[in-house]
Amino acid sequence: MNVTGTKVTMDEIIQRARRGASALAVTSSKAKDRALFRMAKHLDLGREEIKKANAEDLERARERGRNSAFLDRLKLDDARIDGMCEMICSVAGLQDPVGGLLGSVVMPNGLNIDKIRVPIGVIGIIYEARPNVTADCAALCLKSGNAVILRGGSDAVGSNTAIYEAIKKGSMKEGIDEGAFILVEDTSREMVDAMLKASGGIDLIMPRGGESLIKEVMEKSHVPVIKHYKGLCHIYVDEAANIQMASDICINAKVQRPGVCNAMETMLVHKKIAANFLPVAAERLQQHGVKIKGCPGTLELVPGAVPASDEDYATEWLDLVLSVKIVDSADEAIRHIARFGSGHSDAIVTDNNDTANEFTSRVDSAAVYVNASTRFTDGGEFGKGAEVGISTDKIHARGPMGIEELCTYKYVVHGTGQVRG
Amino acid sequence: MNVTGTKVTMDEIIQRARRGASALAVTSSKAKDRALFRMAKHLDLGREEIKKANAEDLERARERGRNSAFLDRLKLDDARIDGMCEMICSVAGLQDPVGGLLGSVVMPNGLNIDKIRVPIGVIGIIYEARPNVTADCAALCLKSGNAVILRGGSDAVGSNTAIYEAIKKGSMKEGIDEGAFILVEDTSREMVDAMLKASGGIDLIMPRGGESLIKEVMEKSHVPVIKHYKGLCHIYVDEAANIQMASDICINAKVQRPGVCNAMETMLVHKKIAANFLPVAAERLQQHGVKIKGCPGTLELVPGAVPASDEDYATEWLDLVLSVKIVDSADEAIRHIARFGSGHSDAIVTDNNDTANEFTSRVDSAAVYVNASTRFTDGGEFGKGAEVGISTDKIHARGPMGIEELCTYKYVVHGTGQVRG
Repeated sequence: MNVTGTKVTMDEIIQRARRGASALAVTSSKAKDRALFRMAKHLDLGREEIKKANAEDLERARERGRNSAFLDRLKLDDARIDGMCEMICSVAGLQDPVGGLLGSVVMPNGLNIDKIRVPIGVIGIIYEARPNVTADCAALCLKSGNAVILRGGSDAVGSNTAIYEAIKKGSMKEGIDEGAFILVEDTSREMVDAMLKASGGIDLIMPRGGESLIKEVMEKSHVPVIKHYKGLCHIYVDEAANIQMASDICINAKVQRPGVCNAMETMLVHKKIAANFLPVAAERLQQHGVKIKGCPGTLELVPGAVPASDEDYATEWLDLVLSVKIVDSADEAIRHIARFGSGHSDAIVTDNNDTANEFTSRVDSAAVYVNASTRFTDGGEFGKGAEVGISTDKIHARGPMGIEELCTYKYVVHGTGQVRG
Repeated sequence: MNVTGTKVTMDEIIQRARRGASALAVTSSKAKDRALFRMAKHLDLGREEIKKANAEDLERARERGRNSAFLDRLKLDDARIDGMCEMICSVAGLQDPVGGLLGSVVMPNGLNIDKIRVPIGVIGIIYEARPNVTADCAALCLKSGNAVILRGGSDAVGSNTAIYEAIKKGSMKEGIDEGAFILVEDTSREMVDAMLKASGGIDLIMPRGGESLIKEVMEKSHVPVIKHYKGLCHIYVDEAANIQMASDICINAKVQRPGVCNAMETMLVHKKIAANFLPVAAERLQQHGVKIKGCPGTLELVPGAVPASDEDYATEWLDLVLSVKIVDSADEAIRHIARFGSGHSDAIVTDNNDTANEFTSRVDSAAVYVNASTRFTDGGEFGKGAEVGISTDKIHARGPMGIEELCTYKYVVHGTGQVRG
């Protein structure tokens, strides 16, 4: 509801956001950074209200029968609020991407063509019950000069509103346009549908959530979409792998945080190393509580393993479950990844440079690793400060999306009266 | 129809294209360039068949009552076939974009993260009756390592097939995978619909054609789309403009080729220069046959001008018609462009650097010009060799799309056993 008590329409929100985007595109780096620091300060000051609103959201979510993983994502405590404040300050500390010169050429006719980084415009974020997304996306979009329309899930509406009001207070005090970031308070489906139809009003939509949300957005949207979709990540242990290193990497990628998109879901093992590697690695994994589903060869080598089907190889477990397959060659591993992978993160462990090069050139994923854990695919670990999401698409941006990936470019052409002959 | 006489489905075409993309992604630069030269040679050798097929297409199009502009786009003569051959050879001469290092960082933990340019995968081109698009897109996609599915309009099916068969012969002789470029011979709507639903099979769709085609693609597509949409280009003649230069630029941008997307459609003139500039410039434009539609101030200064409505300012004329408006300030010009422009190409003519900087930073178009004609927005004029289209979108690529814009990137990360703490 707005001040006159009537319902705010998506058209009105978009108009405010477009004005916000026009203002932000020419806001100085200093003004944006001052606003970010003030947003962090007001988030800190507002923590009691935020925790209170969050407790109410949690209570309602429990009544609705949400599971423990859901409740964990929804929950805000002092440590998580501190984390949001630190994130905003670290974003303020990044170099402003806007105005960066990406290339320059002087043509034979004397035209000087500069390719300059500029904000995309108005971004729409559609997310579920992770209230930290509200602060993350507001901060990253502000820094990159984009207005953002934030539409969070109904389960987190109290927490989102409390966070939003705190950071809004901070940004308004520094003179940032009120349309720079807007939380959609009406969490009805109609508002999402209106966002997806807003071609021309919203420049980019990023859905963050489960598979059904992503699919719905993809099918309905007339606005360009970049998806943070699933991560069905593989690690291929080559015949020339260092066994200890391979074991350490696989344990880390599977058990350090099994519920996230860059965790390993399938381990591929070269047949020549399987007898030496698999029993030892599997035992360590099982000690961490990992359930192993394997091919017939795996079952012979790993006590307690159960048979894996093609459906298992196509499953993103997000849990302490691992699909294992013994392969005849690096080529078979690469073809398995092409068939079952999600283009997120895949790794090879090998001491053979030729095999590593074949793997990195043929595996078509956002991040391809040699001798490291897939768990590093993350804005912070890639030196981007923070991320609005990890793109599993191939258009515009791949992998962790930070402030540079929230920009596009334009050509600024200086002439001295050139006309075309 | 395939060899067994059954209809080829879009699924089959996509499977062939995906195999083509996998093969092309690791094809050497030399092999691609040899194939391109051979494609140009076979296009040259096949010119009699191509002209014959084109004559039949033209005859059928005439019977269907297509207008002269349509017939002109459809027509192929020796000069146009020569042009296609030259384009293919010039694409062969460009540097291979695939494998280019776009950035590199060593993180404190020793991880070496390279950002490497790679092909997008499978591109779908949906176009109308310009048969040269068949050769242009096949050549640019091959060079950039992408497979392409070409779906041309039914009016040009004979010409497209003849061009396709000629270049296919050339590429096959050099061992390029048969799925590298595929012409969809079935020009039914069902095949277009199947392309638009092929999320996961086709990575990017580019529609090239009229407004209704683009709108339909936008509304139906589950695959990411980059549009080559309309060009409603403005030139703003500032109070500090050199009058002779402004006049030359405006004449060029309006009359040199009025039917193309980078031609000027609206001329904005600062009130302080209007009395000196407009009568002279308008007379020159009128001598070239341009009909002027203007604001009330324009009507006072330009004999023969007729009143312009908001609808006129929103119209891409693509013809010898020009909307004119006198504005109070650069700010008003910039706001007019924000309201009516299409984000394609807009120019300012001024000797005032501050005003030029305000214009280039606030006008949100793919190409923003200072003291040059908008007609330069073109792959060739921007040093890209050729283009698959001019993006009026803001995601992935803006402006002329050449071989670099047909690529995405991946992160290749080399470690020494790093795991995440």
